[in-house]
Amino acid sequence: MVREEVMTKGRLAKEAAYTLGTLSTVVKNKALLAMADALLANQDRIIVANDKDMEAGREKGLSKALLDRLMLNPQRIADMAEGLRAVAALPDVIGEGVEMWTRPNGLQIAQVRVPLGVVGIIYEARPNVTVDAAGLCIKTGNAVLLRGGSEAINSNKTVTDIIAAAAVEAGLPEGSIQLIETTDREAVNIMLKLNEYLDVLIPRGGAGLIQTVVKNATVPVIETGIGNCHVYVENDADLDKATEIVINAKCQRPGVCNAMETLLVHQDLAETWLPGLVANLQERGVEIRGCDKTQQAAGNVIPATEEDYYAEFLDLIMAVKVVPGLDEALAHIRKYSSKHSEAILTADYFKSRRFVQQVDAAAVYVNASTRFTDGFEFGFGAEIGISTQKLHARGPMGLKELTTIKYVIHGDGQVR
Amino acid sequence: MVREEVMTKGRLAKEAAYTLGTLSTVVKNKALLAMADALLANQDRIIVANDKDMEAGREKGLSKALLDRLMLNPQRIADMAEGLRAVAALPDVIGEGVEMWTRPNGLQIAQVRVPLGVVGIIYEARPNVTVDAAGLCIKTGNAVLLRGGSEAINSNKTVTDIIAAAAVEAGLPEGSIQLIETTDREAVNIMLKLNEYLDVLIPRGGAGLIQTVVKNATVPVIETGIGNCHVYVENDADLDKATEIVINAKCQRPGVCNAMETLLVHQDLAETWLPGLVANLQERGVEIRGCDKTQQAAGNVIPATEEDYYAEFLDLIMAVKVVPGLDEALAHIRKYSSKHSEAILTADYFKSRRFVQQVDAAAVYVNASTRFTDGFEFGFGAEIGISTQKLHARGPMGLKELTTIKYVIHGDGQVR
Repeated sequence: MVREEVMTKGRLAKEAAYTLGTLSTVVKNKALLAMADALLANQDRIIVANDKDMEAGREKGLSKALLDRLMLNPQRIADMAEGLRAVAALPDVIGEGVEMWTRPNGLQIAQVRVPLGVVGIIYEARPNVTVDAAGLCIKTGNAVLLRGGSEAINSNKTVTDIIAAAAVEAGLPEGSIQLIETTDREAVNIMLKLNEYLDVLIPRGGAGLIQTVVKNATVPVIETGIGNCHVYVENDADLDKATEIVINAKCQRPGVCNAMETLLVHQDLAETWLPGLVANLQERGVEIRGCDKTQQAAGNVIPATEEDYYAEFLDLIMAVKVVPGLDEALAHIRKYSSKHSEAILTADYFKSRRFVQQVDAAAVYVNASTRFTDGFEFGFGAEIGISTQKLHARGPMGLKELTTIKYVIHGDGQVR
Repeated sequence: MVREEVMTKGRLAKEAAYTLGTLSTVVKNKALLAMADALLANQDRIIVANDKDMEAGREKGLSKALLDRLMLNPQRIADMAEGLRAVAALPDVIGEGVEMWTRPNGLQIAQVRVPLGVVGIIYEARPNVTVDAAGLCIKTGNAVLLRGGSEAINSNKTVTDIIAAAAVEAGLPEGSIQLIETTDREAVNIMLKLNEYLDVLIPRGGAGLIQTVVKNATVPVIETGIGNCHVYVENDADLDKATEIVINAKCQRPGVCNAMETLLVHQDLAETWLPGLVANLQERGVEIRGCDKTQQAAGNVIPATEEDYYAEFLDLIMAVKVVPGLDEALAHIRKYSSKHSEAILTADYFKSRRFVQQVDAAAVYVNASTRFTDGFEFGFGAEIGISTQKLHARGPMGLKELTTIKYVIHGDGQVR
């Protein structure tokens, strides 16, 4: 029964994808706006369904943070609708000629941007991902097969029913947006190996979910977002700016993947600038786990362990290490980094160049906060996640990352 | 012991990759030319090693075709050296700014082309792949970990020793080019899950090898080349050109993935053009497996089975199906195609557009032979394989497909 649901929906999605890929921007945008309208018009129905999930969640003893992610209210529904409108307003990347050239034999070769086909999204207890992911997939002409967390099943079912019906009404093929409705975990295992119908899988959630998908999927996966990000402060950095950047990178939103987790400080600053910075951070509620020198220089510093240097705290906790210079900072980053976002703060031209060249990460910063690694901050107008792998997409993924290319070759009878 | 060899070489490759990625074009090209010179200077040593493999192969009863692929002679060694020189002559894609823009807050964001890191190549009994793959990886700043077929082990060891030594001599880091020397199959299983050290795996060989890698690897894979390619001839096609293209697509080199396997013919041509074409092909030694109408129209036609329509014959065999028109041709291609290369031959503008829009394949042709799907024919100057997957690379892969990007962001103290 579980297999039957997944296979049937997979097949239908594949069928839908063939039509979706050829629809004009006008039709796709009309559908996105209709989906937004339908969410607002059915607000009460969504809240009733969400109440069921919230009640079940409270009974199950979900944490306050999880319950907050699960919760939908009129404001959040309005935000989801607004998100769809924003995606509708973005330029359509499908049909774009990426490159085009003519060969000496007269063959005209164009590399044209086309949809991936069917995108599988596996996510946790955030019903807003349902709408987000569906909107980005539709805009890029992809069919989407959604599998959300069981805690949000009533909300996800209702939201999917509403937007899928609105999309079909607006001219999209049946099967463009579908949710796997069984909460049996076996459905995920089937999706992971559904190469026949899925062109790509995108897991969105915690490290556990992502690793399960990466390790077990035979469908190609786009791996998103574990961020153990570093800021390295050189002895010649502008220290006022450095203070501001470090505080921003750690405190502005500590629970996200582009927040700084470890600060590396040049030893010349260990007794001058570092103590004040540590006190400043501590006043903001940040727990400091430092190396020996940090412990000597500042008060209330917990000794940092090897594990701390590997950790993605996602919290008001940070590791601090004093290093002799750029070489040691680079070596530390090479060893511990998750290759997400890394920053150097320096006034030295040559040091900035060395850092940029030698750090292997999706985003490398000179004199700015790591918090900018984000589809919206980069100006993409949308974000499906932040890729920390190197194939297909790296860094913030916008609409283009949900596409592939095909070569279109026009000839006049050419043979080899 | 097997694990130790793979892990040690993997670690060394990762180390080498950090340096390789920062080397200038001048140094990389110098290494490529030195590798070419070394192959020529050590021709006798290579042939002695290859003789051992050939003898063992004959004892093992390898087929004539396999023995031919395994064989190295002065001409083939010269060709390998020439291949390295040609790669050296290509423009370097590393360091290329793919895009660059400035955000309203003054952040300058550049998307810069960088190496993937460490590329694992798993291939069969063709020692020339050793040199080819090493050359393309070095040019793109990647370290390469090679695992060739056991039949070619002596040739591969000798060739790798020679080019790796020449590369180091010319300034590349130790570990840039390495071969797994054990012929234990367990080495492949370890490579498939070596996410710690390998950034990508590229299998080069038959369908069996490729499927094993795709189904079992946790390292990201670039899937290459199964081609069940179709040519569809419309009733309004230029029939002289159609005859030439069909013969070219089937006969010019039947053993490759971009050769045509099934011909689809508009029913209006079944009794006029098709019989002559079939006779022409049969004279060239092609075995025709046709639908009922093909059997009625022409002599010596074997009935085509469902399996024939799915087959990649890689031989002088082809399936032929008469269809009522474009809709049925599109449906046939959708069902049976491996999404490699598909062609329509027509004089009708609107039919050509429908075919281009609706066929989902790496390369879609109008009025040209499918045989052009090739890195050299496309003008890339090199080819690492032809990707039939949609992530990262699709179609012929040249140097760019062995790279990824990183975002480099220059600021003046920006925070969020």
